Amino acid sequence: LNTHYENGTIKLENPPYFIAGGAVGGKKESEGPLCDWLDEFSEDGRFEQDTWEKAESEMQKHALYYALNRAGIDKVDFIFSGDLLNQCTASAFAHRESNTSYVGLYGACSTFAEGLCLSSLFLNSGSAEYTATSVSSHFCSAERQYRYPLNYGGQRPPTAQWTVTGAGTTIMGCNSGIARVTHINFGKIVDMGIKDANNMGAAMAPAAFDTINAIFKDTDTNPADYDLIVTGDLGFLGKKLLCEIFKKEEGFELPNIIDCGEEMFSKSAQDVHSGASGAGCSATVFSRFILEQIKAGRWKKIIFAGTGALLSPLSTQQGESIPSICHGMVIEV
Amino acid sequence: LNTHYENGTIKLENPPYFIAGGAVGGKKESEGPLCDWLDEFSEDGRFEQDTWEKAESEMQKHALYYALNRAGIDKVDFIFSGDLLNQCTASAFAHRESNTSYVGLYGACSTFAEGLCLSSLFLNSGSAEYTATSVSSHFCSAERQYRYPLNYGGQRPPTAQWTVTGAGTTIMGCNSGIARVTHINFGKIVDMGIKDANNMGAAMAPAAFDTINAIFKDTDTNPADYDLIVTGDLGFLGKKLLCEIFKKEEGFELPNIIDCGEEMFSKSAQDVHSGASGAGCSATVFSRFILEQIKAGRWKKIIFAGTGALLSPLSTQQGESIPSICHGMVIEV
Repeated sequence: LNTHYENGTIKLENPPYFIAGGAVGGKKESEGPLCDWLDEFSEDGRFEQDTWEKAESEMQKHALYYALNRAGIDKVDFIFSGDLLNQCTASAFAHRESNTSYVGLYGACSTFAEGLCLSSLFLNSGSAEYTATSVSSHFCSAERQYRYPLNYGGQRPPTAQWTVTGAGTTIMGCNSGIARVTHINFGKIVDMGIKDANNMGAAMAPAAFDTINAIFKDTDTNPADYDLIVTGDLGFLGKKLLCEIFKKEEGFELPNIIDCGEEMFSKSAQDVHSGASGAGCSATVFSRFILEQIKAGRWKKIIFAGTGALLSPLSTQQGESIPSICHGMVIEV
Repeated sequence: LNTHYENGTIKLENPPYFIAGGAVGGKKESEGPLCDWLDEFSEDGRFEQDTWEKAESEMQKHALYYALNRAGIDKVDFIFSGDLLNQCTASAFAHRESNTSYVGLYGACSTFAEGLCLSSLFLNSGSAEYTATSVSSHFCSAERQYRYPLNYGGQRPPTAQWTVTGAGTTIMGCNSGIARVTHINFGKIVDMGIKDANNMGAAMAPAAFDTINAIFKDTDTNPADYDLIVTGDLGFLGKKLLCEIFKKEEGFELPNIIDCGEEMFSKSAQDVHSGASGAGCSATVFSRFILEQIKAGRWKKIIFAGTGALLSPLSTQQGESIPSICHGMVIEV
């Protein structure tokens, strides 16, 4: 049986493995620094579909295909999946022909981390042999749902992040692989009263602090014990805030931190303001770049913490602040 | 370690317990046959809030309060929660002050069953001592999001179901309680090509068949082995279809079947066409009526199977059919 600690961390008695991942993206993603860690990209973002929403579904199918191929297996026992579209339709439509048990999630941009944590628990408890976590976002489907019609060309404030067009799938299993998940932490919802939907990094940073600090406390570790802390996706501003909160509250520096929202695009060459966001951001960055760097021996002990802003356009219109969440895990080679 | 069977059923080695539930509803729900199994109802459906969406959040808070009270505990380790609103905001806003690890789900009207299955796995694996599964829907917030503005008074076809205004919370634990969850089955997505968003019972019945039949096969049982099969929420038409599919495909009669969508309202006295629906329907019916009837000794061995239609207004507008899912479990006293 697992152990459940005071601040919510679960220690997994049979730590499962990351086996392999797949990632696909759009044109802007293919022009960024992670170009080599995309299996495929679509020049027009359509993946040969007639709507942006269908293109997003198609991306998830492709990412799952590449991930399964790289893992050398035909099928998984469970798919954990979610996205940002209303009623999470990108995911449901992507996997409706998979003939595989399906667990639908909503955690906004934390969905991918949430799926990896649940996958870990299923594998750890003997309930599955292989799982896939499949998550996506699409700039065009998100933009018209959350903000303005694309054709309107709405101006973006400097604090805004750019929704990634991308899908990432990571395959996990019981027996062997790149690295193991030893601890998981499903975060608590944190709402510090931020109301600016164009500054989600600021809303999410306190949730990231809460979960990462819970892992430190429950496992009696501190930032120096990790080769890497990777958040996804706070962006430039949110990551800076997270570092400031840790300094102020705990006296910790975070020397080894990177954020998926910073890695995806080039700050100097690509005009994305505060970095990347979207449920597909951490899914894409983690499924290939992070996993393959771990495989290459770059990092041995890692915290991966995915953040999400649990707002909707309607909640913002009704004057509400932005509840945020962060799901985290400890990964060891 | 658990056992994972061919058709997806997981046998839980340490079957967790249902402890107690809480349920609240609106005026129409309080006028129906389950009136005595509501802890509270709001005459105007507003629960003293200024929007329908905030009222829906408030319902979840109240249902959790009554459930914790009845269970005699102050706090759970995890909340599994979801609803039908875009970005599942009813749930996130309900639990943002709970200071409790939060797992956000989207399974449309199957969300409650999905949450109970996940709760069971967390408890079974020693990852939690107590969990809450909290799910809601609200006729007014759903109607204006999915269909028409309320004031428009759109006409409903006879196959349509009526979205329940209600929230239900069920508390589960490791040590003792009303009954135990011995098997869980996360369903596969089934899409038979039904495109009529006003006939979701027809879209969901094949998913219910798929999951319930998977449980029969994996556990080597048949309908005669159960005192009750309870689906939620196929409605009158969907339940009839499910019985027909079982007769045709397996030669089984389903003599002990009830559907949460049939139980909530009076067919003769309340004008709800094909019955009740909405994520809050099975959550409300199960959390008190079903649980307390089990406690009273009415049923000993039960399958509870929650169905969901994974469509969105946009997917319907884009000409898509309705992918459906059903998550099921075996409950034994």
